[in-house]
Amino acid sequence: MNSNKAKWTAEFLGTFWLTLGGCGSAVLAAAFPGVGIGLLGVSLAFGLTVVTGAYAFGPISGGHFNPAVSVGLVIGKRFSASELPGYIIAQVLGAIAASGLLYLIVSGKTGFAGVGGFASNGYGANSPGGFNLMSVLLTEVAMTAIFLIVILGSTAKKAAGGFGGLAIGLCLTLIHLVSIPVSNTSVNPARSTGPALFAQTGAMGDLWLFWVAPIVGAALGALIYNVLLSDES
Amino acid sequence: MNSNKAKWTAEFLGTFWLTLGGCGSAVLAAAFPGVGIGLLGVSLAFGLTVVTGAYAFGPISGGHFNPAVSVGLVIGKRFSASELPGYIIAQVLGAIAASGLLYLIVSGKTGFAGVGGFASNGYGANSPGGFNLMSVLLTEVAMTAIFLIVILGSTAKKAAGGFGGLAIGLCLTLIHLVSIPVSNTSVNPARSTGPALFAQTGAMGDLWLFWVAPIVGAALGALIYNVLLSDES
Amino acid sequence: MNSNKAKWTAEFLGTFWLTLGGCGSAVLAAAFPGVGIGLLGVSLAFGLTVVTGAYAFGPISGGHFNPAVSVGLVIGKRFSASELPGYIIAQVLGAIAASGLLYLIVSGKTGFAGVGGFASNGYGANSPGGFNLMSVLLTEVAMTAIFLIVILGSTAKKAAGGFGGLAIGLCLTLIHLVSIPVSNTSVNPARSTGPALFAQTGAMGDLWLFWVAPIVGAALGALIYNVLLSDES
Amino acid sequence: MNSNKAKWTAEFLGTFWLTLGGCGSAVLAAAFPGVGIGLLGVSLAFGLTVVTGAYAFGPISGGHFNPAVSVGLVIGKRFSASELPGYIIAQVLGAIAASGLLYLIVSGKTGFAGVGGFASNGYGANSPGGFNLMSVLLTEVAMTAIFLIVILGSTAKKAAGGFGGLAIGLCLTLIHLVSIPVSNTSVNPARSTGPALFAQTGAMGDLWLFWVAPIVGAALGALIYNVLLSDES
Repeated sequence: MNSNKAKWTAEFLGTFWLTLGGCGSAVLAAAFPGVGIGLLGVSLAFGLTVVTGAYAFGPISGGHFNPAVSVGLVIGKRFSASELPGYIIAQVLGAIAASGLLYLIVSGKTGFAGVGGFASNGYGANSPGGFNLMSVLLTEVAMTAIFLIVILGSTAKKAAGGFGGLAIGLCLTLIHLVSIPVSNTSVNPARSTGPALFAQTGAMGDLWLFWVAPIVGAALGALIYNVLLSDES
Repeated sequence: MNSNKAKWTAEFLGTFWLTLGGCGSAVLAAAFPGVGIGLLGVSLAFGLTVVTGAYAFGPISGGHFNPAVSVGLVIGKRFSASELPGYIIAQVLGAIAASGLLYLIVSGKTGFAGVGGFASNGYGANSPGGFNLMSVLLTEVAMTAIFLIVILGSTAKKAAGGFGGLAIGLCLTLIHLVSIPVSNTSVNPARSTGPALFAQTGAMGDLWLFWVAPIVGAALGALIYNVLLSDES
Repeated sequence: MNSNKAKWTAEFLGTFWLTLGGCGSAVLAAAFPGVGIGLLGVSLAFGLTVVTGAYAFGPISGGHFNPAVSVGLVIGKRFSASELPGYIIAQVLGAIAASGLLYLIVSGKTGFAGVGGFASNGYGANSPGGFNLMSVLLTEVAMTAIFLIVILGSTAKKAAGGFGGLAIGLCLTLIHLVSIPVSNTSVNPARSTGPALFAQTGAMGDLWLFWVAPIVGAALGALIYNVLLSDES
Repeated sequence: MNSNKAKWTAEFLGTFWLTLGGCGSAVLAAAFPGVGIGLLGVSLAFGLTVVTGAYAFGPISGGHFNPAVSVGLVIGKRFSASELPGYIIAQVLGAIAASGLLYLIVSGKTGFAGVGGFASNGYGANSPGGFNLMSVLLTEVAMTAIFLIVILGSTAKKAAGGFGGLAIGLCLTLIHLVSIPVSNTSVNPARSTGPALFAQTGAMGDLWLFWVAPIVGAALGALIYNVLLSDES
């Protein structure tokens, strides 16, 4: 058993890394003139935060880095509800700290004139591609549901050992490849909260959705997995 | 032994994910202004649906997500013919459900004016690069044949344990890197059927080819593997 | 022990796949209007032919797919010189067959007007970026030398089991990320020979270099590995 | 135990490969007209030098290829301080040799007119995106700190065996996806030193920062790991 100090530090650092790496790549490199990494590079960056975090922090905390994942794992009977508060607080603080550091870095750019959307999530006017509330809701619920199913399946006892971190991280890349244009992709309330605090758009007003939809989706995914997929006969 | 309920659910969900992730990335993100993921991002998305699905659902259903694969595995003596109907029905339903959800998401975009080709497959006028029937047929047969050889080889008893899901998924990425311009890449009749039902082009008229060619290719690949590659002396 | 029939078929099919996948992606998809995969996609495609081929065919033939690799493995004492002729013939025939199939596919494109360079390798006027003979020679020798060192190191007894195919394939991706602009990247005489037979440029006149340089580089890499890296004390 | 000759050769060659592969892709292929690999391709290249080097050279020398990593591993109690001088000298010489070879290759291009920045690192006027000293310092310290945490975590005894090389290499890709626009990404004093010797810009004047910041960051990461993450109770 790892101590709470180690587990909370791992969740703080893992979510810090997810937010700094994912949102940082979006803010700093996505649209760099001529050679920018685009949405493909941002998708890869988000996924690799989880691949690297899973192998580095997984043995310590389980490597959630995401309140929706922690809730889903409780429903999926892989994690204790009593641990939820500590994990979620660590995750949200990690995302906020990363957003603060990213703000400092960005503000040192020649001609800095504000951070704009700052990789925040949104619907309607704040959706990158102009998708409405219903599209964003459907997307976030479906993507988080599948994310939880992949997490539960690829870390089940009968799954191929060691490959879970790769499958889960690359699942997050895939989720971003599909859904950045819709919602800028959350599936993670902590990741949404950090940048929203600094964004100059209306991201704070949309933030409720990126707590509700990912958690509903995660619960749905965990239920589907437990009811439909895990029986053996 | 997993129950039929678990196996069919796994094939339904895996093919749902393949279609939502692959076709969704193509429809939503490929040509996003300035930072679109392009054919490279779509290729990666299709492959990652299989990487993630293989590790999540593989231990439950074997992780086919594709009627041509199921048929090829019967010919390759890795799967029972009696299970084909249930698997293929689940796969096609999964692809249709994903296409329906994608339609709902896309229709919530500001200024929505129809889905166009909707990532459907085609030849001639419906080929992305204007390739004729013969080119598309050759491409789909060859690609599916190699796909099956990679599947059979990387999951053989003497293969490196656990890496099959990665090799097979990345094989699908590679197939897309080559053949999206030719046929929009099927190698999977279920994946072709879902979007064709919603496309506003003549995709339904071309659909027969994307049942025939992948299944012929899969059979060919399984025969090559069994006759030429699997003898030991 | 696998039979010669199985080994030669594996080398034929693996080199067929390397050439069809790598050169096919270059010819068909690299410069597709607006959403082309670019040199990054081509680099990934070449690497994934080896990743997939290594896991599928590796247990049968060792997964060389490349005359320079076969020669280097003889010098590195991992492969028998008596097997070289059969392997090299199978590899060259596989590359030629893939080039022929690719020619057929390409010729079915609306408005087809010849294949041009057809992903062939070259120096000077036939170098993509206009690099001279010395640059191309240095690049091909250095890249193939490192390729062999990675092959020998990642498949050594003390290496992490199962990861060799991934490391070697991704090494080929990396080699292409650097050197496509210089020589269009060979490091593989068979891969160079197939397209040269169909190219409408002077690729046949440059072909000698893409037999000499990769084989010299492979020999150099094998010697460095055996003399400087493999002693233990 | 491997001999010093083998270990130093491994570190020389691994850092040679890191610099030739990473900086080579930046100089030769990043901005190739129309189909250039961009910052995404360069990020992938840097990461793959470590993925391939880790599996090839890791069993020989541990696979540092980076003075900051070697220092961090001493602080993290995974490496002996007495071995630092030999490792760091080998790393710096490898990076310089690679830069020299890259210079030779580049100079053979038609119309060659100097190497310009030559993939060197810098701040202020030498930062690709015009970021000031503070931004570059924060970025390099934070990125190297996380890099060390990922290295220490993914190679810990309780980590999934064999996946360390993949996690560490892909971590370097991720670091580049975020920070090329800021500092051109160092996190590695040897990688910074090689190109600076050849660059036609003021890279030599900025070089001190790319020794100080990565080493400070590496030390910080190792301390965080040992103090906060590695206790078990």
